[in-house]
Amino acid sequence: MKKKITVIKVGGKIVEERESLDNLLNRFAAIEGYKVLIHGGGRSATKMAERLGIESKMVDGRRITDLETLKVVTMVYGGLVNKSIVASLQARGINALGLTGADCNIIKAHKRPTGNVDWGYVGDVDSADGTMLSKLIEQGITPIISPLTHDGKGNMLNTNADTIAAETAKALSSIYNVTLTYCFEHTGVMRNPDDANSVIPQIDSNSYKKLLADGTISGGMIPKIENAFNALNGGVTKVIITRADAIDGTSGTHIVV
Amino acid sequence: MKKKITVIKVGGKIVEERESLDNLLNRFAAIEGYKVLIHGGGRSATKMAERLGIESKMVDGRRITDLETLKVVTMVYGGLVNKSIVASLQARGINALGLTGADCNIIKAHKRPTGNVDWGYVGDVDSADGTMLSKLIEQGITPIISPLTHDGKGNMLNTNADTIAAETAKALSSIYNVTLTYCFEHTGVMRNPDDANSVIPQIDSNSYKKLLADGTISGGMIPKIENAFNALNGGVTKVIITRADAIDGTSGTHIVV
Repeated sequence: MKKKITVIKVGGKIVEERESLDNLLNRFAAIEGYKVLIHGGGRSATKMAERLGIESKMVDGRRITDLETLKVVTMVYGGLVNKSIVASLQARGINALGLTGADCNIIKAHKRPTGNVDWGYVGDVDSADGTMLSKLIEQGITPIISPLTHDGKGNMLNTNADTIAAETAKALSSIYNVTLTYCFEHTGVMRNPDDANSVIPQIDSNSYKKLLADGTISGGMIPKIENAFNALNGGVTKVIITRADAIDGTSGTHIVV
Repeated sequence: MKKKITVIKVGGKIVEERESLDNLLNRFAAIEGYKVLIHGGGRSATKMAERLGIESKMVDGRRITDLETLKVVTMVYGGLVNKSIVASLQARGINALGLTGADCNIIKAHKRPTGNVDWGYVGDVDSADGTMLSKLIEQGITPIISPLTHDGKGNMLNTNADTIAAETAKALSSIYNVTLTYCFEHTGVMRNPDDANSVIPQIDSNSYKKLLADGTISGGMIPKIENAFNALNGGVTKVIITRADAIDGTSGTHIVV
């Protein structure tokens, strides 16, 4: 039987404020067994870009990444946010290791082709190396992955953290029994965003189609759920969308195939 | 017999300009056997601090590191400079892994006590973990270490790269036969800084005392040579001070005990 591993993705809002980060890290440290954390950091990147006089251009909530912006996200995601989490986890007795996709070549990507939009240094993932991650994990190391990949030609690339979480979870699923948890600001996927009690406990591909058609699921939730189905179809055992204070997986919305 | 490992330290000037960095990385990639790179990045940190309106305060060439400055060096050393090197080495077929002292808990330090100068978040090294580094190295990984450590209580600390190189080399010396090479802008320790042919081929503790007394060795060269003796006394086999284009160790100044 495969060993269990928990892959947690947390968004920028949670990791960028000291109190919510500390709460999250306490909960993350308490998770038993193998675990991996994938983090965002978009708000910090936008703030840093602003301080440096670099305009943040977003399309559909995604950042257009010219060379100057790539430097900002590499500094902020790979340096500031990642190392703050690593040092904080070390203080909690977790032997954390901060990684970008370039480190140990764990996530290779290619520059997104220019279509209607020139995304610049934005990477679409080609492959994640579950075997290398597993070698690190089996040494007692807990990988903390920032939303950066590389193209193998010397360029770092800015890559969506939800996608990195799905691809990492898939890559690990040939070795482990993987639970992937997406943490965000709500208690789960909700029928009514104003009603905290309207969480949909379970979504499968049929109910997803209906929720999409009637507009219950829209906007930024669509790529999140598509990443969830992608992960499940790629071998991940369980995907949960929930709030950061419920990373034990007992509540939230369970996505199933 | 112990296996050989080469520990190279390169200063900021070399890693912060594309051409000299590329030349260095070509030479580093060509080194046979196990290897580790430790890099600086001070000039980039100063430039970034300036862009952010943060004044860089230096005492004896060392940076006073208040909380805002700590954020800058964490971003610049741990993010920008480190990941640029990692991605560039991956493109050269080297399986590089960027590390700070917090990652895998490889270098623990304590905040330097306030004496005449309040250094802020500057760390003096307590210990480096050669066993953990060796576990990574034996997986085919090449560690790329930035001049940052942590205190085990959740704080990153700014730490001199020459010191990190010496401590890392010492920690590895119980497992490997270690050559430590300090690269800087000159061909070696020189009798006359204006004469490139005046490199002193070998310095031992006796000749060091004389060179110190007659003023041949002064300023920033003193801590570099003291780090070299510290490394040799800690078990490192060979220490060389040379230019980045001579990291094969055939020229430069050899420090011996």
